[in-house]
Amino acid sequence: MIRATVVGNVWSTRRLPEVPNGAFLEVEVEGTGARLVAFDVLGAGVGEQVLVSQGSVAAGWFPEPHPPVDALVIGSIDPSTE
Amino acid sequence: MIRATVVGNVWSTRRLPEVPNGAFLEVEVEGTGARLVAFDVLGAGVGEQVLVSQGSVAAGWFPEPHPPVDALVIGSIDPSTE
Amino acid sequence: MIRATVVGNVWSTRRLPEVPNGAFLEVEVEGTGARLVAFDVLGAGVGEQVLVSQGSVAAGWFPEPHPPVDALVIGSIDPSTE
Amino acid sequence: MIRATVVGNVWSTRRLPEVPNGAFLEVEVEGTGARLVAFDVLGAGVGEQVLVSQGSVAAGWFPEPHPPVDALVIGSIDPSTE
Amino acid sequence: MIRATVVGNVWSTRRLPEVPNGAFLEVEVEGTGARLVAFDVLGAGVGEQVLVSQGSVAAGWFPEPHPPVDALVIGSIDPSTE
Repeated sequence: MIRATVVGNVWSTRRLPEVPNGAFLEVEVEGTGARLVAFDVLGAGVGEQVLVSQGSVAAGWFPEPHPPVDALVIGSIDPSTE
Repeated sequence: MIRATVVGNVWSTRRLPEVPNGAFLEVEVEGTGARLVAFDVLGAGVGEQVLVSQGSVAAGWFPEPHPPVDALVIGSIDPSTE
Repeated sequence: MIRATVVGNVWSTRRLPEVPNGAFLEVEVEGTGARLVAFDVLGAGVGEQVLVSQGSVAAGWFPEPHPPVDALVIGSIDPSTE
Repeated sequence: MIRATVVGNVWSTRRLPEVPNGAFLEVEVEGTGARLVAFDVLGAGVGEQVLVSQGSVAAGWFPEPHPPVDALVIGSIDPSTE
Repeated sequence: MIRATVVGNVWSTRRLPEVPNGAFLEVEVEGTGARLVAFDVLGAGVGEQVLVSQGSVAAGWFPEPHPPVDALVIGSIDPSTE
């Protein structure tokens, strides 16, 4: 997983019908400054540190048929360990 | 997913027969300037910001047998959040 | 696999219910300084060098249904070969 | 997919028996200068621009059992769009 | 695949029981200097150039159940093409 900080929301109204409803969060990867967009069901907010899983592992979390989502917030990092 | 901007089309007449018909868009990844080529069925145009999924997740979106396509535009980013 | 050094623990109380109980270790990749978070069942400690597998290979190590975990410590590197 | 230019052939006589017969092309990724080796059945030549798919998507193109090949030339880029 | 040069062996006595017996080679990726650890059954030695496949493709080469191995030496590069 990567450790990343939520920097904002991304909205996409025109999208593939297989993309699930929910939050797409833009996150910044710890250390590198690289950014990616992860699906979130935990309600993480801007500034929060999260753990993100990538690849088919992310899509596999969803019920079948797996959606074309390749990044998923799997947890919020406890502030004490930030 | 990565957030990227469409910079052009790529045409490939001589290709594997399993490659689906459709648009191959060259996109530039936000922040890094790295480029990749993604399959698109949403009709995204040059200058448009899109969300791209990569890897087996992209191929898995297509009906079986999954084609050898490892990047897919899954949505167009709403201009208000660009 | 990548060779990495354990630099700390990461705790995530608020997480997806499918995430297994166990240690999440932050590791620093040899040479690059890049960091990632890997699941560990071997009890590796801070300063220890480990081998980490990534992607669906990591999730596939767990019994089904595979959890959304994309990095796994598969071994501790013998000190003599560090 | 990545867009890359063929820079040469790679020969491997001593290899796993599951590796298919065919051309292994060394390609240079557009923009970055990074190199990788891709399997090719289209007969691409040195200097030609190609599209390369990576990961399990590449192996999945082959009949089962899928060979341990993680990069595949899926098309030759039309010169007019180079 | 990536083209890499073997730089040494890595030993891991304390490891997951699912990790197969065999050689773990540390290899340096051509051009970048990045290093990774790949499983090898071909008996490649230090200084030898090899082709390495990564990800689930590497694990899929092994009989089921696939071990948590995400990099595999699939061939030794003929010296004439080094």
